[in-house]
Amino acid sequence: MTQQAEIQWSDAEKKIAEVALKKAYEQELKSLVQGVRGKASLISLPEDVWQLHDFLSAKRHEIDGKYDDRESFLMYTLSRLVKDGLLDLSDLMELETDKRAKISVLTRM
Amino acid sequence: MTQQAEIQWSDAEKKIAEVALKKAYEQELKSLVQGVRGKASLISLPEDVWQLHDFLSAKRHEIDGKYDDRESFLMYTLSRLVKDGLLDLSDLMELETDKRAKISVLTRM
Repeated sequence: MTQQAEIQWSDAEKKIAEVALKKAYEQELKSLVQGVRGKASLISLPEDVWQLHDFLSAKRHEIDGKYDDRESFLMYTLSRLVKDGLLDLSDLMELETDKRAKISVLTRM
Repeated sequence: MTQQAEIQWSDAEKKIAEVALKKAYEQELKSLVQGVRGKASLISLPEDVWQLHDFLSAKRHEIDGKYDDRESFLMYTLSRLVKDGLLDLSDLMELETDKRAKISVLTRM
């Protein structure tokens, strides 16, 4: 964490990160909407309803923690989104080279 | 509660209550399955997903507490199910007259 805290983000870079986070979030939620419609169409038993509830509880918890945009967490947040396929390194081309390299390394961890 | 605790349930009556609770539970869950499929088919926005999650959380909490089959709660449980339209007084015809009368009074409270 100490190392991450030393990384400086310019206002322009924060904006790039913000746009990337928004893009990833929208994509994730769009997939979730489709997924829930699909799952729900298959519900036929009471336990299916509770399974859907468990799935949504877990998903909500995951998503609530995933888009942490605090400066000291941005490297982790962005690398996780790349890892999850919600962002591409090319979405972060405008960040300085050093940050992109670090994010790239983190995605392989 | 003191008054309720004095009511005695024979084994045969407990069985009648158990069958009635099971019937109501199955009916409620069947409606829930239909309702969730209907709601889910209308989901198009991210907030719809979270609304469905909130609805399921509330419903699960409600149902978890609703089918209390402890002897001292049976009068309340049965009267609530009648009130909610999940049971009919005719489902309880085999209970002794006094219990049916009390349940009937409780449903009007």
